[in-house]
Amino acid sequence: MRRLVLDVLKPHKPSMTAFASEIASVATVEAVNVALVETDDKVQNIKLTVEGDDVDTEDIESEVKGLGGSVHSVDEVAVGERIVEERPTPQER
Amino acid sequence: MRRLVLDVLKPHKPSMTAFASEIASVATVEAVNVALVETDDKVQNIKLTVEGDDVDTEDIESEVKGLGGSVHSVDEVAVGERIVEERPTPQER
Amino acid sequence: MRRLVLDVLKPHKPSMTAFASEIASVATVEAVNVALVETDDKVQNIKLTVEGDDVDTEDIESEVKGLGGSVHSVDEVAVGERIVEERPTPQER
Amino acid sequence: MRRLVLDVLKPHKPSMTAFASEIASVATVEAVNVALVETDDKVQNIKLTVEGDDVDTEDIESEVKGLGGSVHSVDEVAVGERIVEERPTPQER
Amino acid sequence: MRRLVLDVLKPHKPSMTAFASEIASVATVEAVNVALVETDDKVQNIKLTVEGDDVDTEDIESEVKGLGGSVHSVDEVAVGERIVEERPTPQER
Amino acid sequence: MRRLVLDVLKPHKPSMTAFASEIASVATVEAVNVALVETDDKVQNIKLTVEGDDVDTEDIESEVKGLGGSVHSVDEVAVGERIVEERPTPQER
Amino acid sequence: MRRLVLDVLKPHKPSMTAFASEIASVATVEAVNVALVETDDKVQNIKLTVEGDDVDTEDIESEVKGLGGSVHSVDEVAVGERIVEERPTPQER
Repeated sequence: MRRLVLDVLKPHKPSMTAFASEIASVATVEAVNVALVETDDKVQNIKLTVEGDDVDTEDIESEVKGLGGSVHSVDEVAVGERIVEERPTPQER
Repeated sequence: MRRLVLDVLKPHKPSMTAFASEIASVATVEAVNVALVETDDKVQNIKLTVEGDDVDTEDIESEVKGLGGSVHSVDEVAVGERIVEERPTPQER
Repeated sequence: MRRLVLDVLKPHKPSMTAFASEIASVATVEAVNVALVETDDKVQNIKLTVEGDDVDTEDIESEVKGLGGSVHSVDEVAVGERIVEERPTPQER
Repeated sequence: MRRLVLDVLKPHKPSMTAFASEIASVATVEAVNVALVETDDKVQNIKLTVEGDDVDTEDIESEVKGLGGSVHSVDEVAVGERIVEERPTPQER
Repeated sequence: MRRLVLDVLKPHKPSMTAFASEIASVATVEAVNVALVETDDKVQNIKLTVEGDDVDTEDIESEVKGLGGSVHSVDEVAVGERIVEERPTPQER
Repeated sequence: MRRLVLDVLKPHKPSMTAFASEIASVATVEAVNVALVETDDKVQNIKLTVEGDDVDTEDIESEVKGLGGSVHSVDEVAVGERIVEERPTPQER
Repeated sequence: MRRLVLDVLKPHKPSMTAFASEIASVATVEAVNVALVETDDKVQNIKLTVEGDDVDTEDIESEVKGLGGSVHSVDEVAVGERIVEERPTPQER
């Protein structure tokens, strides 16, 4: 598992930065990107991108839950010897 | 066969990550990208991109079926000594 | 002839993957991309991109016909010592 | 003259591929791209991109006429020691 | 913490340039980009992008406050061994 | 002066290709791109991009006039040790 | 200060080219891009991009004023060991 992209709902606490740092501290993680999609007074909808040589999905999902967040959906997964990018095909343009 | 892009309908179980890992374990596969297109309470519409030196299409399609999924359409195929990218022509812009 | 892009109508059989493999087996072909544009219950409209050092157009067109397909139009052709890309000019933006 | 982009109307015969090969055979030409813009029952509107170290414009225009085509407009010309690309400025965005 | 992107409201004084220089002077910061999003007679809405090997978020947020600004939201955070870019998935296109 | 982009109105004669060649022959010019923006029965509106190490603007403007053209506006100028590209900022997106 | 992007109103005289050359002559400036955004019979609205290792903002702003121009807004500033590019986040797409 080289890339995992999750749509996550998280409470305002911990902050985005603390949240990202915690995810990045998970053993199999090399790098994390957390981007804000939407926010209201209770929760933040974030897009969590995690990359590494062998990302442990369950560790990530339990870390998210441990931080009070919930995985709304798994949006993208890249597995194998390298990261394959998904590209628009004529039907999607 | 260097790249195979399939439009797949899959049940919620196995998860996207388990699904991708299973496809990636097929002998001729180097790397897999699974991206969520749409989801409802029963099924997930995913875009499955598989790359390798000589991807065995039938193995992939039977693996998809074995995981409870169904191939809705083959959206793109790249065959030969290298991967040729499809590019928009003036008529498509 | 270094690149040939054809708009092709093909029956559902042979499959996109078989169709691409057959085209790729033509002597002068290095690599093939077949992308689905539209499909109905009888035929598939595909975009066929073929690249090589000296692609034999007639071989490709007869291979397409041999596979039950018909060339709807030739959308792009690149000939010469290298592939020249077509780029949008101010009038097309 | 390193790049010449012409908007050309051509009859259906010769084919796009034959047309491109003929243009590519002109002495000063290194590479040619012919892309279909529009077609009706009588003529094809194509975008002809020709590149080389010192493309002879008159040779190209007479070759186009010799093939039954007509130059509708010269859309882009690049001259000099290298090819300069035209880029959108703020007014055009 | 390798990248921190903040949506900030700042008073007209200090100027954007002084504001950027102050943020860049924070110990853990390698480089800063400050881009104007909107302005009215009282405040400027700016997008603050801060990069470094180990950016100290609290230092940045307190520096912003010290300069009279307020952090409206944390829009993006990149943590880990390298910067991971967030990319549009099919659902977002 | 490393890049000069002019919005020019020119008569149909000399042709775009002759016009570009003349501009390219000006001493300080390395390369020229002439792109057609609009045309009517009397004049052509072209986008003239000129690059070089030290482009002499007055030479270019007088060459344009000498060829019967008129400079409608200077759209972009790049001066200095290298060419700096102008990039969209958040306000322009 | 490695990049300064200013929205400037300038009179028609000096010309865009003279204006850019003057700004480029300021000691700390490596390269300048001046792009026309809008023009009317009295003034030109230009986008001034200035890059260098340590651009002196006050020198630039006073040079702009000395040339009869006025700084309408500072649109972007990049400070530090390298230029950090601002990138669209999911909220801006």
